[in-house]
Amino acid sequence: MSDHTYRVIEVVGSSASSIEDAIKGAVADAAKTLRHIRWFEVVETRGHVENDQVQHFQVTLKLGFTLDDRG
Amino acid sequence: MSDHTYRVIEVVGSSASSIEDAIKGAVADAAKTLRHIRWFEVVETRGHVENDQVQHFQVTLKLGFTLDDRG
Amino acid sequence: MSDHTYRVIEVVGSSASSIEDAIKGAVADAAKTLRHIRWFEVVETRGHVENDQVQHFQVTLKLGFTLDDRG
Amino acid sequence: MSDHTYRVIEVVGSSASSIEDAIKGAVADAAKTLRHIRWFEVVETRGHVENDQVQHFQVTLKLGFTLDDRG
Amino acid sequence: MSDHTYRVIEVVGSSASSIEDAIKGAVADAAKTLRHIRWFEVVETRGHVENDQVQHFQVTLKLGFTLDDRG
Amino acid sequence: MSDHTYRVIEVVGSSASSIEDAIKGAVADAAKTLRHIRWFEVVETRGHVENDQVQHFQVTLKLGFTLDDRG
Amino acid sequence: MSDHTYRVIEVVGSSASSIEDAIKGAVADAAKTLRHIRWFEVVETRGHVENDQVQHFQVTLKLGFTLDDRG
Amino acid sequence: MSDHTYRVIEVVGSSASSIEDAIKGAVADAAKTLRHIRWFEVVETRGHVENDQVQHFQVTLKLGFTLDDRG
Amino acid sequence: MSDHTYRVIEVVGSSASSIEDAIKGAVADAAKTLRHIRWFEVVETRGHVENDQVQHFQVTLKLGFTLDDRG
Amino acid sequence: MSDHTYRVIEVVGSSASSIEDAIKGAVADAAKTLRHIRWFEVVETRGHVENDQVQHFQVTLKLGFTLDDRG
Amino acid sequence: MSDHTYRVIEVVGSSASSIEDAIKGAVADAAKTLRHIRWFEVVETRGHVENDQVQHFQVTLKLGFTLDDRG
Amino acid sequence: MSDHTYRVIEVVGSSASSIEDAIKGAVADAAKTLRHIRWFEVVETRGHVENDQVQHFQVTLKLGFTLDDRG
Repeated sequence: MSDHTYRVIEVVGSSASSIEDAIKGAVADAAKTLRHIRWFEVVETRGHVENDQVQHFQVTLKLGFTLDDRG
Repeated sequence: MSDHTYRVIEVVGSSASSIEDAIKGAVADAAKTLRHIRWFEVVETRGHVENDQVQHFQVTLKLGFTLDDRG
Repeated sequence: MSDHTYRVIEVVGSSASSIEDAIKGAVADAAKTLRHIRWFEVVETRGHVENDQVQHFQVTLKLGFTLDDRG
Repeated sequence: MSDHTYRVIEVVGSSASSIEDAIKGAVADAAKTLRHIRWFEVVETRGHVENDQVQHFQVTLKLGFTLDDRG
Repeated sequence: MSDHTYRVIEVVGSSASSIEDAIKGAVADAAKTLRHIRWFEVVETRGHVENDQVQHFQVTLKLGFTLDDRG
Repeated sequence: MSDHTYRVIEVVGSSASSIEDAIKGAVADAAKTLRHIRWFEVVETRGHVENDQVQHFQVTLKLGFTLDDRG
Repeated sequence: MSDHTYRVIEVVGSSASSIEDAIKGAVADAAKTLRHIRWFEVVETRGHVENDQVQHFQVTLKLGFTLDDRG
Repeated sequence: MSDHTYRVIEVVGSSASSIEDAIKGAVADAAKTLRHIRWFEVVETRGHVENDQVQHFQVTLKLGFTLDDRG
Repeated sequence: MSDHTYRVIEVVGSSASSIEDAIKGAVADAAKTLRHIRWFEVVETRGHVENDQVQHFQVTLKLGFTLDDRG
Repeated sequence: MSDHTYRVIEVVGSSASSIEDAIKGAVADAAKTLRHIRWFEVVETRGHVENDQVQHFQVTLKLGFTLDDRG
Repeated sequence: MSDHTYRVIEVVGSSASSIEDAIKGAVADAAKTLRHIRWFEVVETRGHVENDQVQHFQVTLKLGFTLDDRG
Repeated sequence: MSDHTYRVIEVVGSSASSIEDAIKGAVADAAKTLRHIRWFEVVETRGHVENDQVQHFQVTLKLGFTLDDRG
């Protein structure tokens, strides 16, 4: 049967180099405790500045995953 | 004492038949691991199309629940 | 002359069975005191959960109506 | 190669009976001229009222489709 | 290494006296099960009225925290 | 029968001392002509400044109430 | 004492000639039954098209007013 | 049968003189290739400035139309 | 080299006669102290009402400009 | 002549005790360099948490002021 | 004459490597059938995850173009 | 004393190569006249297209900074 339920959580990844690395890092970290992550959606992109330079890109993501192997 | 704290999570329910069934299914699935769900709020309604026909209604919900029996 | 003014109010309808019935009920209730309702727009869809089951769908609507017979 | 481009259009479906039928009707109508529709997203739900009763549910949708068979 | 991932959850705090107490209560309750809460963001402020008087201020918050001691 | 319809109005309360007093004042004023107010939701918080000092906090609220004793 | 409460209603004005006339017409119509209108805010600008030409500009407004002479 | 489907497109009209003319021009231009335009909705109002003066008002519109004569 | 940075400020223009004049006045006033204004974007349209009549249209704008002659 | 132009800036005030004090502090700080501040609008309310307790309320405000004595 | 009308469409580009490549790919694909694309605006950034890794960045864009050579 | 006030400005950075470079360029340019920039937040990502190719990524940012060395 194809009906199933996803769960969505919100995480913030950060990277000194790029927005893509902040996203990949957040997904990799979340995958340590969650199986079956299926998609992400960028909610917000921010960052820190020190000494007149960007120190980190911080990307807030929603991550969707299934709780079992049906998805 | 009446002051208490709710927790809100986000889930996505899906159903081939109706938006209401997608909501009910998401609540029922969440209730397997959460007690004391009190309300839901629809965040987004989407769906999949295959062979020119709607296959699933997918409804993203916020679910509010209490962590104990005070609520 | 075709220029006229509409008034918009906000109501919340509820139904144990469907979103459509919550909308129809809100329109029917509002029509007891307002003549000339012309349109509705869904603002928010929420609901209550008790004993792990959806008890009510609650739909917040804007209702547009004219104050006279010109509309 | 898995990279491809989707196109998104906006349509409004209407139905006297239900929100689901308004969505299905809009997808079916769009499928007369578009192949490869893959998903929909509800943008807005409105409707007309006459003689104190809901006449139509009008649902504005975004529809995503691919321009070829790669999707 | 400075790159790390935060997790964001949503909670609702309530207080009969003030918005600030609702926020503080929600943070204190969440801190019972979560270490390393770093920030909050107000999402929504609502409340209940009974007998023509405000009974509770209800504040929906996002809470950001780290999963370890790196943050 | 548990199905009923709420009405939602928008008011702006103001107070020289606090946001909470602006909310309470708006609810109290509205209660002079409306019975059965059930909830409020903060829409906007603004204020006036004179002589470099905040003169008033102005809080725009939605107020939900029932038209009868069923609620 | 300077603390008082405003009421906000929503109206839709229309004009075949301009957005400004649609606003002025909506204010004038509302003033027939409401005294002490103080401000307006444009919520939405729409219009009807017939025979390839704009027939009406329709402007949805919020109108703020006081219930007495204190404002 | 009264159920039908509308299509919505987005256009940007511009005029050196007024917002209304930018809207009318966009509708007139779109009508060269589309029959049965029924409504417009303003999405955004922008403009260009040169030599300290407004050169153009640019209005982004959604235009709704039917694909046939049923509408 | 074509890469450059714009600055964006927010201003509110007002006019008793029209929305366009409120925009033009805000641009003209800002141009007294800023060179190189390039574009505007309407953020909000409000106004004051006295004696049942619109006294002013107030338009909040974002104004983009370059800090030098590169733009 | 009553037509004039306001300028709007964005500031973030913080206070360990209350949201109102964060707003008052931001206005007082801004008034050190700006004359004729007329209004504020709350854009966002956030805060820092350390050792499981709220350390600061941080309130982002828009502040409107006139550039001269006409306002 | 400088007044002209733009058309805006929505597309979704995807790339396994970067957000920029997803944007460039969507523009290049759209340019196969559209001449005179002038600008893009990012609406949404999402992506797919498989086996705990980001498979694609998916970027939804609005694309503005003119229908002729006047722009 | 830990209470202080930040100021937030809006800038637009552009780069022919990447979104990250557009952000870094905007921060570097702003740092020529502002000391103590602490954070940025992406508001909007747009760009120009010429000859069917992306010419620039344009990123609108909010930049937060303190007016003194307390921050």
